[in-house]
Amino acid sequence: MTQTSTTSSPASTQTIDWLQIPPATPSESARRKAEARQQILTKPPGALGRLETLAVRLAALQDKAQPAIDRVHVAVFAADHGVAVEGVSAFPQAVTCEMVRNFARGGAAICVITRQLGATLEVVNLGTVSDLEPLEGVKTYRLGAGTANFTREPAMTEHQLACALHAGRHAAERAQLMGAQLFIGGEMGIGNTTSATALECALLAMSPRDVAGPGPGLDAVGITRKVDVIRRGLELHCNHMTSPIEVLRRVGGFEIAALVGAYIACAQMGLPALVDGFIASAAALTAAKLCDGIENWLLFSHASAEPGHRRILSALGAHPLLDLGMRLGEGSGAATAVPLLRLACALHNEMATFAEAGVSEKIS
Amino acid sequence: MTQTSTTSSPASTQTIDWLQIPPATPSESARRKAEARQQILTKPPGALGRLETLAVRLAALQDKAQPAIDRVHVAVFAADHGVAVEGVSAFPQAVTCEMVRNFARGGAAICVITRQLGATLEVVNLGTVSDLEPLEGVKTYRLGAGTANFTREPAMTEHQLACALHAGRHAAERAQLMGAQLFIGGEMGIGNTTSATALECALLAMSPRDVAGPGPGLDAVGITRKVDVIRRGLELHCNHMTSPIEVLRRVGGFEIAALVGAYIACAQMGLPALVDGFIASAAALTAAKLCDGIENWLLFSHASAEPGHRRILSALGAHPLLDLGMRLGEGSGAATAVPLLRLACALHNEMATFAEAGVSEKIS
Repeated sequence: MTQTSTTSSPASTQTIDWLQIPPATPSESARRKAEARQQILTKPPGALGRLETLAVRLAALQDKAQPAIDRVHVAVFAADHGVAVEGVSAFPQAVTCEMVRNFARGGAAICVITRQLGATLEVVNLGTVSDLEPLEGVKTYRLGAGTANFTREPAMTEHQLACALHAGRHAAERAQLMGAQLFIGGEMGIGNTTSATALECALLAMSPRDVAGPGPGLDAVGITRKVDVIRRGLELHCNHMTSPIEVLRRVGGFEIAALVGAYIACAQMGLPALVDGFIASAAALTAAKLCDGIENWLLFSHASAEPGHRRILSALGAHPLLDLGMRLGEGSGAATAVPLLRLACALHNEMATFAEAGVSEKIS
Repeated sequence: MTQTSTTSSPASTQTIDWLQIPPATPSESARRKAEARQQILTKPPGALGRLETLAVRLAALQDKAQPAIDRVHVAVFAADHGVAVEGVSAFPQAVTCEMVRNFARGGAAICVITRQLGATLEVVNLGTVSDLEPLEGVKTYRLGAGTANFTREPAMTEHQLACALHAGRHAAERAQLMGAQLFIGGEMGIGNTTSATALECALLAMSPRDVAGPGPGLDAVGITRKVDVIRRGLELHCNHMTSPIEVLRRVGGFEIAALVGAYIACAQMGLPALVDGFIASAAALTAAKLCDGIENWLLFSHASAEPGHRRILSALGAHPLLDLGMRLGEGSGAATAVPLLRLACALHNEMATFAEAGVSEKIS
């Protein structure tokens, strides 16, 4: 935990014009140098598989022929969801607040993993149902006591949406200022698989029945109820969801919007972001609809057990590194993949070349 | 590198009777305790996917409710293959010797990964075509100038096979003496995908045409030649391959036999072994045919790009952790998976429980 608790009032003049800033451009020259280096390392070309393509991609993103992922910053965005009152989660809504405290005390999964990685971790509370006492490592942007219930009204006002996007942008900027070479966004919010599924359905023209899943533990009856809740929400808003940003405002969540803002800001600043599971990927999908070229800056970490995830990954042309049946959120899947990025860089930078080692190359 | 160079003459009285020693039994009590702990950590049950089942399995193997994978020992077994003269590799046979030197100087992929992991690494040269000068970190058991060409005669004599199995056993015993909590066996030997494919065909009654692959870089013509070489070898030996040990002697390799010996010794001593890719899995398959119950002690790290690998994994009921298109050998895929085992242990040991964190459990 690197941040002490602060409370920021959202400025009343927040706009979303900054979303239009184009993303940075990866370095073709660094990519070519890195590709050339991979061909002369003491291994059959291609034999390290995705560890090779990862190193080359990171070289292009960092504009360095020899990339590094030493400094990693994780921001976990927390918020409550009005739609939770519809009974769409296997856990009580109080868990969002309880987990923010657990993050602050270092007991949550993402805390354990970031300690193992030597990564920095901050938590951004965008609006839990209850106010929380000041907590070490938790920044507070209180946009409301959770979003509104999207089966009755838009989840967010335009102002709340703009502030949530800004909160994500600020987290990405803090990561950049701290010298992070990789940004990971996590989320915590009871009910947020319902919001993410609604986003997916609206953005990919899917039916809730085809993509809604158990989230952290619904049974079949619960999933049927969740499908109905999402269907009602999509029906209520369907005539108004004419743009990705309006879809996000009407059925998204504060923490999901913050992830969208963070991913777009990362791409604009040229900071690679490692995307977590289902919720984070729904945010990445939204960001991709808002910002052409953002995909260059998004690395996908793992395939979640949540059924809607694979369709989003497919829509984004993403092939995540891990498939371990994880479905926790918090950024935990992305953080679990960080050692692979580090090994990819170490192999790329430290292996001997054929010439250095006096090893014969392939018979032509 | 932790070992200095030594040359051991194989004792003339080596037997393989020790293969009959039964494997150790994992602790059901530690498994149950670990399973119970996973249910009370602050996450939805099962939400960490395979990181949960891994931690529980390691608890059973280490007989500790809170397992750890801090100390990892990697032994890379190197040897040449007589069958290489048949033109079955995209690389010249000299590469085996050259790579042993590269291991000793720290320039190979496995050297980079073990440094990153803080793991210990030793190289065991069982018989390269040329004698090598003494090299730091390389132990030498010279069983011959490579195996014999299995298209003409058995790859190994009974004595060579016994010595190779012993060499693997000794590496596992050194790992145990050093306090390793995990053993990884790697291999290096030009031509060894041909031997491993022949083993697979003989042990699983497969056709070479269905499983032979490019190894480190054969083209289609080369693969056709490799299929023919394996077919000729299997035809020559088919009436004599009446037991797994005889299959190993006739078409295996020194380094493959060492891996077999190491895996069996690990299981007997109760030391978990993390199996690398295609060659290592062919050794694991052979070990499983020789030693009932060994599967308990073998963890599978990654799915290799070599096509024959998936059939072996399927025969062993194994579901590897990673699928990154790696096909290098040296133990590199297994070593790449070590951070996942470490994260699984850290999460299991360090996450707060619901009671400790005051977090509500699932609505029943």
